[in-house]
Amino acid sequence: MAERTYLDWNATAPLREEARRAFADALGAIGNPSSVHAEGRAARRLIEQARAQVAELVGAEPANVIFTSGGTEANTLALTPLIETATEKTPRGALLISSVEHPSVRAGGRFAVDAIIELPVDRDGRLNLAALGQALAGVSRPLVSVMLANNETGVIQPIAEAAAVVHAAGGLLHVDAVQAAGRIACDISALGADLMAVSAHKIGGPKGVGALIRRHDDVHFPDPLIRGGGQERGARGGTENLPGIVAFGAAAAAARAQMPDETPRMLALRQKLEEGLRAVAPDTVIFGASAPRLPNTTMFAVPGAKAETAIIALDLEGVAVSSGAACSSGKVQASHVLEAMGYAPPLAQAALRVSVGWTTTDADVERFQNAWRKAYGALSKDLKDKRGMAA
Amino acid sequence: MAERTYLDWNATAPLREEARRAFADALGAIGNPSSVHAEGRAARRLIEQARAQVAELVGAEPANVIFTSGGTEANTLALTPLIETATEKTPRGALLISSVEHPSVRAGGRFAVDAIIELPVDRDGRLNLAALGQALAGVSRPLVSVMLANNETGVIQPIAEAAAVVHAAGGLLHVDAVQAAGRIACDISALGADLMAVSAHKIGGPKGVGALIRRHDDVHFPDPLIRGGGQERGARGGTENLPGIVAFGAAAAAARAQMPDETPRMLALRQKLEEGLRAVAPDTVIFGASAPRLPNTTMFAVPGAKAETAIIALDLEGVAVSSGAACSSGKVQASHVLEAMGYAPPLAQAALRVSVGWTTTDADVERFQNAWRKAYGALSKDLKDKRGMAA
Repeated sequence: MAERTYLDWNATAPLREEARRAFADALGAIGNPSSVHAEGRAARRLIEQARAQVAELVGAEPANVIFTSGGTEANTLALTPLIETATEKTPRGALLISSVEHPSVRAGGRFAVDAIIELPVDRDGRLNLAALGQALAGVSRPLVSVMLANNETGVIQPIAEAAAVVHAAGGLLHVDAVQAAGRIACDISALGADLMAVSAHKIGGPKGVGALIRRHDDVHFPDPLIRGGGQERGARGGTENLPGIVAFGAAAAAARAQMPDETPRMLALRQKLEEGLRAVAPDTVIFGASAPRLPNTTMFAVPGAKAETAIIALDLEGVAVSSGAACSSGKVQASHVLEAMGYAPPLAQAALRVSVGWTTTDADVERFQNAWRKAYGALSKDLKDKRGMAA
Repeated sequence: MAERTYLDWNATAPLREEARRAFADALGAIGNPSSVHAEGRAARRLIEQARAQVAELVGAEPANVIFTSGGTEANTLALTPLIETATEKTPRGALLISSVEHPSVRAGGRFAVDAIIELPVDRDGRLNLAALGQALAGVSRPLVSVMLANNETGVIQPIAEAAAVVHAAGGLLHVDAVQAAGRIACDISALGADLMAVSAHKIGGPKGVGALIRRHDDVHFPDPLIRGGGQERGARGGTENLPGIVAFGAAAAAARAQMPDETPRMLALRQKLEEGLRAVAPDTVIFGASAPRLPNTTMFAVPGAKAETAIIALDLEGVAVSSGAACSSGKVQASHVLEAMGYAPPLAQAALRVSVGWTTTDADVERFQNAWRKAYGALSKDLKDKRGMAA
């Protein structure tokens, strides 16, 4: 595809060069990490090196990293009533989630549907901490799942504050950090998360690998989601995705090293982009604009302009953006995130997400702006024609 | 590692060149297969091409292939009471498995421990069909799981016969074909399997990807193991492992194309290897020797020679073999497969597995034989010394 501008980094990011090299190297390692011979031991060393790299990205101990097939599996593994700690072996009484969580958290893992409680967010998409406190009061041994940053709007949740509330109520906190990792600080201890999910392909690693990370090694899963040969200290069976894990480790190390440069650069691109949006249409709504947000994400809408039409128009101009979560059947639907934030369907159905990354340039943003000006012109002409016909 | 002879192909196989090229190509595809823009649609096409290639390996319809993170997840997804067919929506009453299944099947998926019934095998490790029939009589809507070929001994099960018995009793049959695929014919219709698990890395694809394949599209999982964004037609959530799936497809196509050449070549290597074993020690036991076996697998033991010692001695000579399943904590344990076949622990603890593959040569087998002769000499000297001391 010649001359494309890819601005859908929250759906998936290109592979970092460091990860690509690690991938290629690991493909030559032929052993099974569980084998006792030299080939097996060499494969094991590669896995353990990657485990340390992923742990370092979130300030955890390497032994507390459980590799999975991705963020969705990591969330699913975490969300089970059967989590044991040193002092609590009784199953969790309920799962509390924010109403803007990713579909893999909304699915609720192994909790029964009637054991899942949704917590409201405010107009900016931030968790209502008072509502969290009230909901916790009615539950024994709660498990709470709140994302660090929203995949659609980029809005950052008050995780450290939520953790304090959850822990005061004797609960455990799982944090979906899939969109936040590599973009903002994700120190598991500073956040107070008991469990944290990370995905490789959002930080420049390959698709098909992720991790569930524990803050303390006294948190156990007596009934893992995928059991078999005892891999990942019994927490996740199946031959390890060796090249994927090695490339994940390399991406984590690169993301960590480059974050101090990448974060302000992405923020500048986002500001330029949002100024451009308001220049094209002063009535543009930028969702979560007054909340802390990821430096790379803008979700916006212009009243009346349908997202599906806009995405197709932009795509034809060589610009890839999204209407929200990509994790669906390819159909553009109204966002449950915007609904939870109190936006009515007409505006929610107009929402477009633009997300940038480490290779995005000023020229990319300008190309988007030109394409958007053109698309918006056509969309607003349609709108005026329709209004004219109705009049 | 210079001058190594890798004879542990049942633990994991090297990547096929076709898969490596496909991998490298797919790493350049940056889109999320669920995205509607051009990048997303290009990624989707790659996935669907691979789906057709994997389907063709087992004679299934592409739409009936559910990609997973590997054989273990495929087995775990299959083994749930909540499987629906067009005519039967009530949960399955019990899971029947052979006593020589892989640990990921023995774990029983989402069946309660007391709902799992183990079926005996004969001295050659073949399923007792009469016992299967008797066990089926006592169960409503049974799910049966029998492997096509055993990972340790290579013994091939009478799947078509078992399928007839299972279907006559109104049951469903899941077949773990992880070790068989690419080595012997695995036509899902000819075998009569309702579900079949395959792993990429055993056929020359990458680690971290596999598939659960359905014979008919009327078999559904209303409660998938991993839920999220509705991928794999709702049967398996999470962003698809794009490079892994594409490389899996390429490996499946290559394995299918090359099987007519590879199968007889591996069989000749196995015969040479087994003749050599008997020449070194006439009292060598080759497990399952009188049953149909995979062309690439030999599991053997010499009474009194400990497997752990032998593996280390061979490894030091540059030859990688195994004591059985690699899917463990790296510890050599007595094989549950050999115990189920009626072998007492002393002989079971002496068992070594040698498994060859498409790049194995006559020279590799000769190198193994020389290393084994040397190792056996040392082991049998130890044994004689011990006997001398005991006398």
